Amino acid sequence: MSAPRPDRRIVTLVRDGAAFDDHLVVEEPLEIRVDDRSVAVVMRTPGHDLDLVAGFLLTEGVVEAADDLAALAHCTDPARENAGNIVLARLAPGTRPEGDRVDRAARSFFSASSCGLCGKETIERIFQRPRPVDSTYTPDPAWLATLPDHLRAEQSLFAATGGCHGAAIFGPDGALWVAREDIGRHNAVDKCLGALLRRPEGLPDPLRCVLVVSGRAGFEIVQKALVAGIPALVAVGAASTLAHDLARRGGLRLYSFARGGKANGHGDGP
Amino acid sequence: MSAPRPDRRIVTLVRDGAAFDDHLVVEEPLEIRVDDRSVAVVMRTPGHDLDLVAGFLLTEGVVEAADDLAALAHCTDPARENAGNIVLARLAPGTRPEGDRVDRAARSFFSASSCGLCGKETIERIFQRPRPVDSTYTPDPAWLATLPDHLRAEQSLFAATGGCHGAAIFGPDGALWVAREDIGRHNAVDKCLGALLRRPEGLPDPLRCVLVVSGRAGFEIVQKALVAGIPALVAVGAASTLAHDLARRGGLRLYSFARGGKANGHGDGP
Repeated sequence: MSAPRPDRRIVTLVRDGAAFDDHLVVEEPLEIRVDDRSVAVVMRTPGHDLDLVAGFLLTEGVVEAADDLAALAHCTDPARENAGNIVLARLAPGTRPEGDRVDRAARSFFSASSCGLCGKETIERIFQRPRPVDSTYTPDPAWLATLPDHLRAEQSLFAATGGCHGAAIFGPDGALWVAREDIGRHNAVDKCLGALLRRPEGLPDPLRCVLVVSGRAGFEIVQKALVAGIPALVAVGAASTLAHDLARRGGLRLYSFARGGKANGHGDGP
Repeated sequence: MSAPRPDRRIVTLVRDGAAFDDHLVVEEPLEIRVDDRSVAVVMRTPGHDLDLVAGFLLTEGVVEAADDLAALAHCTDPARENAGNIVLARLAPGTRPEGDRVDRAARSFFSASSCGLCGKETIERIFQRPRPVDSTYTPDPAWLATLPDHLRAEQSLFAATGGCHGAAIFGPDGALWVAREDIGRHNAVDKCLGALLRRPEGLPDPLRCVLVVSGRAGFEIVQKALVAGIPALVAVGAASTLAHDLARRGGLRLYSFARGGKANGHGDGP
């Protein structure tokens, strides 16, 4: 599926009562099924759905490399009226039993929101991931602080609707690798990482790049960056205490309030 | 617990390398336990925790009135090192078996994020709630569009950190009933609703009031408003297509981009 598009609804200006046909950001549920099991329903902006699911499975720890995904496609069952809102993933037979991987998906995803894990375990789980951050990648902070301006140029859905987040990944040479938009900031990040994972060459290892997000850096964005092995994260908005602490612990270079070449660094150096 | 406070971390200005002691919004996990069962772990800003849990249990359909909550308190077990991040709720013996209520909590909460429910069921569930919206409450839209300015005056944590959402509820006479802040917009809404529920008089019925949120109006905010029986929702940010459609279906008066007396109305009238 191609890039997300806005949809139109009639809205009315409070000021003068004029009605007009406005462009709103689309939000619809997407059901993610792995090996015929329902793993999650996420609210997302349709478009780049396969990138979203690939990235979700990466940052939730279900897959670690492109080879782990044997198949990924929308449901085409004509009996399902909302087939376009269902994505089916099939895992490659791997070293771990498949059931264990999917169980891990369910546990992993639940743990962000729920049940049976105390908060401490939720956080410790991040550091049990196998993909390390490449801490030898030390991009120039002054350059990092200019990247949100480049992301903004890619946010066409935001320009039309004012209602969605953007994320982008830039390579070490400054090239824009990928940019994605979604109503959920975590989805925009997953779409970027999934797009990289789905390239013929898969995810680079080590992953020397910068993740830029249009909003704030909270727990879930730092979690996704650390699990994926991202070495640098630049947020246009604020960072939380937990984001600050986890980034330092995990060796992730975190910058907040990055706009117009300025930013606040959360590591030891500038 | 009293209002949330920022915490301090050393950050470094990218511009000139100057280090300073910045105020960041606090983000920590909160485990919600109902009748000795772990129902959810949510990332939240500490402060007004009991309001948050009361509102969460209301908007997730576990409780419907103040009488349904027999007890609500932080964990005080000295053996739990993070007892301040655990809230214990006890349900009053009710007409429904207790186990069924808690199962409903788990199902209900999971369904927003996950498993076993397709998106269509996730959405239909909202309209199976017992508390109707009072559609005879027709506040002046021009007045509604001024409310975000009043909310802003209450956002002291945002003023200090730039990193959190605010929500407020105003009565039909224009009085500010409650305002709350949190790193999560859904938490700020739950804190407001929980604060009302925990008053000696409980939640008014019908609930003639206006909910104002500092951010966007997406699925989860409209869901919470509809389940609680809120008749009017004013968002500083954009509304999604799903928010627009669900608000119209549920009789919720929804306004987006409300700033400085201007707003876009999503209903039939002005």
